[in-house]
Amino acid sequence: GARRLDGIPTTIFTEMSALAVRTGAVNLGQGFPDRDGPPEVIASAVAALQGGANQYAPGPGIPALRQAIARHQQRHYGLDVDPDTEVVVTTGCTEGIAAALLGLVDPGDEVVVLEPYYDSYTAMIAFAGGVRRPVTLRSPDFRLDPEALRAAVGPQTRLILLNSPHNPTGTVLSRAELAAVAEVATEHDLVVVTDEVYEHLVFDDHEHVPLATLPGMWERTVTLSSAGKSYSFTGWKVGWATGPAPLVGALFAAKQWLTFTSGAPLQPAVATALDDCPDYPADLARSLQERRDRLVAGLEGVGLTPYVPQGTYFVATDISHLGWASSRDFCWALPERAGVVAVPLEVFYDDPDAPGAGRQLVRWAFCKEAGVIDEALRRLGAAD
Amino acid sequence: GARRLDGIPTTIFTEMSALAVRTGAVNLGQGFPDRDGPPEVIASAVAALQGGANQYAPGPGIPALRQAIARHQQRHYGLDVDPDTEVVVTTGCTEGIAAALLGLVDPGDEVVVLEPYYDSYTAMIAFAGGVRRPVTLRSPDFRLDPEALRAAVGPQTRLILLNSPHNPTGTVLSRAELAAVAEVATEHDLVVVTDEVYEHLVFDDHEHVPLATLPGMWERTVTLSSAGKSYSFTGWKVGWATGPAPLVGALFAAKQWLTFTSGAPLQPAVATALDDCPDYPADLARSLQERRDRLVAGLEGVGLTPYVPQGTYFVATDISHLGWASSRDFCWALPERAGVVAVPLEVFYDDPDAPGAGRQLVRWAFCKEAGVIDEALRRLGAAD
Ligand SMILES: CSCCC(=O)C(=O)O
Ligand SMILES: CSCCC(=O)C(=O)O
Repeated sequence: GARRLDGIPTTIFTEMSALAVRTGAVNLGQGFPDRDGPPEVIASAVAALQGGANQYAPGPGIPALRQAIARHQQRHYGLDVDPDTEVVVTTGCTEGIAAALLGLVDPGDEVVVLEPYYDSYTAMIAFAGGVRRPVTLRSPDFRLDPEALRAAVGPQTRLILLNSPHNPTGTVLSRAELAAVAEVATEHDLVVVTDEVYEHLVFDDHEHVPLATLPGMWERTVTLSSAGKSYSFTGWKVGWATGPAPLVGALFAAKQWLTFTSGAPLQPAVATALDDCPDYPADLARSLQERRDRLVAGLEGVGLTPYVPQGTYFVATDISHLGWASSRDFCWALPERAGVVAVPLEVFYDDPDAPGAGRQLVRWAFCKEAGVIDEALRRLGAAD
Repeated sequence: GARRLDGIPTTIFTEMSALAVRTGAVNLGQGFPDRDGPPEVIASAVAALQGGANQYAPGPGIPALRQAIARHQQRHYGLDVDPDTEVVVTTGCTEGIAAALLGLVDPGDEVVVLEPYYDSYTAMIAFAGGVRRPVTLRSPDFRLDPEALRAAVGPQTRLILLNSPHNPTGTVLSRAELAAVAEVATEHDLVVVTDEVYEHLVFDDHEHVPLATLPGMWERTVTLSSAGKSYSFTGWKVGWATGPAPLVGALFAAKQWLTFTSGAPLQPAVATALDDCPDYPADLARSLQERRDRLVAGLEGVGLTPYVPQGTYFVATDISHLGWASSRDFCWALPERAGVVAVPLEVFYDDPDAPGAGRQLVRWAFCKEAGVIDEALRRLGAAD
């Protein structure tokens, strides 16, 4: 294998889902729902399959979907997006991340990234030859410290890779935190790539504020999202990037060589989702909030104190009182011990032993049916 | 944009299909059929959509599809492939190319590649930091010259990127040519990545011989293919890589960060295609051969001498007698002049003016209905 693969392991999500399949454990690891999205969206995909949408979609995505994405940005955030030059359809948010980094980062460029980080961020920063500069959201509250952000930025910094709502902590960045990001980005003339794939999955009275809506930020921001999380079709891998033409154009210039295009019969269905099911994501968020509360209460009941998330599919717990060397050891033993799979947070840090970092943090997914969550909790309660 | 994008234009296929849409021209440019594949395969995708195959497929692909791919390799080529470690499902052949190069090529490594080359090859060799060493299939017969191949290999060579049946020339490499590749690869201990996406689309008595079936070659060969071309679902972008575990593992180690996975409801349908429609590709090849002959005869009729292809969707013609500075100029003017889109071959060469290279070559697709081909020919005949 090429040297760029050195030190980059198999993604933890493949590892943990394979472990769940192998052991028959309840999978609260990888974030995917066990109930599919709206039936009319499936019907739209069926119509597309039967109606001949089976050959290459245009590289940037079919016009109907790009237009629906532009309407979505307008409806939810008041953003005026040109579907022809400011929208590119991607193979899920993952391809958006890969293409943004390959399209915007030169070897030696520093990339400031929130920590704990989704594992594809670090892999693709490395593939682009970038140097990662993490800014840690520290437990117990996982807030963004503007001073830490400032300290991470230097003369070599090219890009901030943001993520809000934040996986795996569940933090939703506040307007004040986002304003700090905007200030730093503007002051240092940085580009921001912001992964907002959980944009609609926020709870209580928390609000998701797209970074691109802050004054002066549209011009320097590439926003990534996907139908997978908002519409419960994670397997379709239809995502998108929006932003000013030069930045989205650079992403597209890289993206065309990664997959060219994908999901031709699924693209019209995602247009249907965005246009005809505008309330689905908020309904999903309400349902997820109930399941969050169910999982949070249950984890407390088995002695695992949760950090209550403001958004996403995930809740983190501290396991330090249980005497495991690491969350990795804990998670690898868990299927055998309790018949449950969870994700160790420690793999998402440069230094998991730093203050407030995640050597002893474990992530649990609550995007599952209530009965599945209950069964996982029952198993955790019965384990010793 | 990042420097790795410098000098790498938008793929000619996006450019030419956009030109066709803009001008309403008959599109004999980008290679996609205008008739979809088997109805039972569509029915299988519909069943998957309605039956809940809508969440993340495993990173390497669903087991049912990997097993069907292994059976396909066995049935057609007598190859024994382990579906668990020697098969990875990709987002079309394009992602296979990207992941193979990122997974196997280090900066400075030389990659020997057939010329004219598919444009994603050169882009991804560049993204991987590789140095391209083209070996030209020269007109008029577009054969592989073993001496030219030997001359292109040096101490820095890491990999040969092969393609047979060859796009855009239609050459199907003979056993003797493949044996020369095998000899060079073995002698210099090279890896070969072979794009065999047109494996089933061969004509007359030509036979597609997978490089991996040659003695000693399995161990050093990654073979790429896709359901898009064999089953007329180019928009589904479900492809695969097969080869020994270490090589396919390196490809997968890169692939997981590009898209993670894709096409969950389409993967079971492709398994259906491979298992239940084993004769479809050969029937398609027969039908394509008729259309090849129709296009070849028609192009001759309008004074464009075709190089009769042994495989693929494409026929090349020489336009040097027409007085255009380049095939690019010819193709850009063609929609206006004649209402037809074709692809200029000159963009697929390092030096299109070298002897036997493609400054004056144009590619025409015949994967279209007979009526579409006839209409294109009528327009070409009517143009001045
Ligand atoms: C692309 S696999 C991971 C899914 C996900 O977003 C998560 O579990 O964090
Ligand atoms: C992936 S776009 C190009 C389709 C094709 O193989 C061709 O036209 O050469």
